[in-house]
Amino acid sequence: MKLDRLVGERFKEKPSDCVVESHALMVRGGYIKYVANGIYSSYTPLKRITRKIEQILREEMDKIDGQEVQFPVVMPASLWEESGRYQSIGKEMARFSDRNESPLVLGMTHEEAAVQLVREYGQSYNKYPFMIYQIQTKFRDEARPKSGLIRVREFTMKDAYSFHTSQEDLEQYYDKCHKAYERIFARAGIPEVISVASDSGMMGGKISHEFMLLTGIGEDSIAICSDCDYKANLEAAENIVINQKSENAEPLTKVHTPDKHTIEEVCEFLNADAKNSCKAVVYQRNADDKYIVLFLRGDLEVNETKLTNHLGFEIHPAVISEDSGLNAGFIGPVGLDGDFIVLYDRSLKNLNNLVCGANEIDYHYTGLDLDRDLENVEYYDFAKIQEGGICPKCGKHSITVSRGIEVGNIFQLGTKYTKAMNMTYIDSEGKSQYPIMGCYGIGVGRLAAAICEVSHDDYGPIWPKAIAPYQVHLCAVRPDDQEVKSFADKLYQDLLDKGVEVIYDDRNVSAGIMFSDADLLGVPLRVIVSPRNIKQGVVEIKTRDKSYSANPSMDVAFEEILKLL
Amino acid sequence: MKLDRLVGERFKEKPSDCVVESHALMVRGGYIKYVANGIYSSYTPLKRITRKIEQILREEMDKIDGQEVQFPVVMPASLWEESGRYQSIGKEMARFSDRNESPLVLGMTHEEAAVQLVREYGQSYNKYPFMIYQIQTKFRDEARPKSGLIRVREFTMKDAYSFHTSQEDLEQYYDKCHKAYERIFARAGIPEVISVASDSGMMGGKISHEFMLLTGIGEDSIAICSDCDYKANLEAAENIVINQKSENAEPLTKVHTPDKHTIEEVCEFLNADAKNSCKAVVYQRNADDKYIVLFLRGDLEVNETKLTNHLGFEIHPAVISEDSGLNAGFIGPVGLDGDFIVLYDRSLKNLNNLVCGANEIDYHYTGLDLDRDLENVEYYDFAKIQEGGICPKCGKHSITVSRGIEVGNIFQLGTKYTKAMNMTYIDSEGKSQYPIMGCYGIGVGRLAAAICEVSHDDYGPIWPKAIAPYQVHLCAVRPDDQEVKSFADKLYQDLLDKGVEVIYDDRNVSAGIMFSDADLLGVPLRVIVSPRNIKQGVVEIKTRDKSYSANPSMDVAFEEILKLL
Repeated sequence: MKLDRLVGERFKEKPSDCVVESHALMVRGGYIKYVANGIYSSYTPLKRITRKIEQILREEMDKIDGQEVQFPVVMPASLWEESGRYQSIGKEMARFSDRNESPLVLGMTHEEAAVQLVREYGQSYNKYPFMIYQIQTKFRDEARPKSGLIRVREFTMKDAYSFHTSQEDLEQYYDKCHKAYERIFARAGIPEVISVASDSGMMGGKISHEFMLLTGIGEDSIAICSDCDYKANLEAAENIVINQKSENAEPLTKVHTPDKHTIEEVCEFLNADAKNSCKAVVYQRNADDKYIVLFLRGDLEVNETKLTNHLGFEIHPAVISEDSGLNAGFIGPVGLDGDFIVLYDRSLKNLNNLVCGANEIDYHYTGLDLDRDLENVEYYDFAKIQEGGICPKCGKHSITVSRGIEVGNIFQLGTKYTKAMNMTYIDSEGKSQYPIMGCYGIGVGRLAAAICEVSHDDYGPIWPKAIAPYQVHLCAVRPDDQEVKSFADKLYQDLLDKGVEVIYDDRNVSAGIMFSDADLLGVPLRVIVSPRNIKQGVVEIKTRDKSYSANPSMDVAFEEILKLL
Repeated sequence: MKLDRLVGERFKEKPSDCVVESHALMVRGGYIKYVANGIYSSYTPLKRITRKIEQILREEMDKIDGQEVQFPVVMPASLWEESGRYQSIGKEMARFSDRNESPLVLGMTHEEAAVQLVREYGQSYNKYPFMIYQIQTKFRDEARPKSGLIRVREFTMKDAYSFHTSQEDLEQYYDKCHKAYERIFARAGIPEVISVASDSGMMGGKISHEFMLLTGIGEDSIAICSDCDYKANLEAAENIVINQKSENAEPLTKVHTPDKHTIEEVCEFLNADAKNSCKAVVYQRNADDKYIVLFLRGDLEVNETKLTNHLGFEIHPAVISEDSGLNAGFIGPVGLDGDFIVLYDRSLKNLNNLVCGANEIDYHYTGLDLDRDLENVEYYDFAKIQEGGICPKCGKHSITVSRGIEVGNIFQLGTKYTKAMNMTYIDSEGKSQYPIMGCYGIGVGRLAAAICEVSHDDYGPIWPKAIAPYQVHLCAVRPDDQEVKSFADKLYQDLLDKGVEVIYDDRNVSAGIMFSDADLLGVPLRVIVSPRNIKQGVVEIKTRDKSYSANPSMDVAFEEILKLL
């Protein structure tokens, strides 16, 4: 393809609305065009990249006996009512009615469609296991699309669904798919992707993993043990606390703390360590605004995912009203009276001599001992693990927290969907059973953007060979020079004839413009034909990542390029 | 792939809700699964077929310098407001609002998105011409989805958009694309597809063609000249009528025609030929129910497409109310009084001695001569061309009418979209101009179904080699026979190693079940290994279309199969 025919514009200035580099480079390089919030069109270079990623996905899914199918983008609401998710999923799901007022939804995931497709097929145990997958457009009405293709509303996804007759069989297949995912990320040029235990969220099921590409711009926080192989999304990471009661137990004493509202202010005022305080964090149930008061150690933060999972309903940070019975800033466990859900984090277990609110304006207690001062306290895990925290696997203080982009996920779904949608099979003993499911997703556009995010320099993306839009970027500097033009033309044709994907720049522009456009296209191998090179009888070859450059003589240039590919 | 692992069911009984054969065979063969009205999931065999079709489309689009891009499925309403189609398109377009109440639509075609993508790129004449295309899911809320994949609501389409600086350049490219379409249909195994002139409908523009696969179940009627190369969709076909006045002009005479309402009843009662009558057909404007009274010769039918195009607004067949001033069954041009739009078809030109309604219950006129009895009558072309009608090109009475499935269409759009959306370029003389567009569509699923419709027998589809889900269907009849099993297993592996797409049936079922499943999968080459064949030292090879069969000896069977592929 000749660069001067390539539809799309390339430019130098970083667009002001781009926060992350992959977003800026994809706009500057003519990869994407904004259509609406979280909705983009793709130009040819990106389309070539995503098609290569899709082909890798297809090959690796086929290798683990996946069968490619296709589910609809538009589905009847009734299908989602069967699973219960028509009700349980909120505004992320786009809903509309057709001309006959039948309610429809846009697919954001396809568990329901997968069960519907195979419900009749899978009626006997001897059909199992099997896996079906698709590569298709999805729409999720994200509240805050951002970072270009990292978080969008419309996206292409590879989603796979496996069906099994035993948990052991699911687990075996789950491992197989885990390995396939490792191969996929390695083939796509990011072998450094790690898998971490994750929260299953709206998907259901117990065990799930996310594949994370570590980068500072990632939206997820990941707890990684520097000593063993423990890795988990912060949302799912267990927080272990080992406390010891002080031997000098103080009595519970009310103290005057005028205008000290936050736990930091109170601790400073009372000269106490935040670790020796019991702070209250208040939420409200979305459905009816009922208050939930959570107590945890003053130096920790709430992990809202764990809290929501425990409660089993959606919550939001509280807006505390005057008639609530809560004295904001002075809430404590002793003497708290009202129709609240009260919860205790296990970071408070086995502590005494704590500072806490006295449920009275301008007063706190010191000397709190929950065991002594309250009855029947139950402790659960609601706090975020912290840098330097205790690894839940090896028990050492070896947790580090990193940021990452989720580029894939796998879930052991269990029988959530097959039960809800009444999909059964007859087992070898003639008994009716529910199949056990797994599901496995990779977002294509996000993967491309994530790769760009970890593989670029100031001038453009550095695409790994396997997914680069072209393999060779041929520049004819000064194509008005007859020798340059005819040599470059021939090289272009020879490479095309060999089936090499070449982008050929023979525009009458400066070398500077040529090279900055080439940087933005990020093609692995750059070949430069110029009057100076011709004079020396050579061609200049460079890799985009600058790891290699050579000046082979003109007569071997073609073979040299083929060798490098 | 082993057949016993292939997800999907195959069965003999024709489903009662399937009217056309391709629909029945695709359900019976485990190709599609109904999800909702006009919405299907695809099993692997169909997915393999459509992927091959898509690859053919891609290659042929690339050959005519197309650049693959991708537009969104979900688009903001504002984009369609720019072109005016947010208003002009009716219920076929799915509309919904996102969580912020922003109106969105589902793409049913992508002219607006194409212009949006290249509006900034195409600002100078030297960027032209260029063509961009995509292969993607579309949703059109059809009033009456039917015939399986022939008329659905959700479908995958290849849609291409070209941009030009002159009508000549568009026409040249349009011809190039016409030839690419011919190659596509030939490669997909249906070289018999014909192109016919068509009505441009909601797309706009003047010249357009549809590619039609002739078959009795087709929804379109096509006028074909048996004498010259004239071919047109009936909707777009000009109807030529040559009339001569009778020399014995009769006077206009009111006659009593009690209870004779239809033109057939009246003509029979008055012993007149329908050709000598002037019938009235009444419509109403959708917007305000205003009546439109159309007069045409009694033996002809109204072409509503031509009528709507003339009127420039949407209409529906009239419901004639009592206070309308119209006497249903007795409407005629003489003395017709009221606030109606009155139109005359050119089939009435130069006729006299006509029977027509007298606008009075139970009365008609005879002897009508529009020239004599009315003033200022203007005639337009509103009638359907008929079998035996006059060819608008060669002028002979040589029109035949056939039915066909539209498998592709191409449009010369002109500047409709670029003007409406203010896309301009600076021409070589520094003047601002609107680019001229063409657009080119092929529906992937419909093409697969249409091919099945014209290429099947009573037992299943006969897939052309280029799009068949597999190339070889290997049957091991009596796999419990050690010799059969080990020979067939080895053949399967050898073929796989050669990269041949094989579906291997080694189930312990009767030959009858094996062969009927093979018929339903429609794979071009069937290879049968059985105890009887083994005893004779041969393998049986048959083509699905029954044009070829052979029994090569076992030791050359592998080479023989490769030769046949």
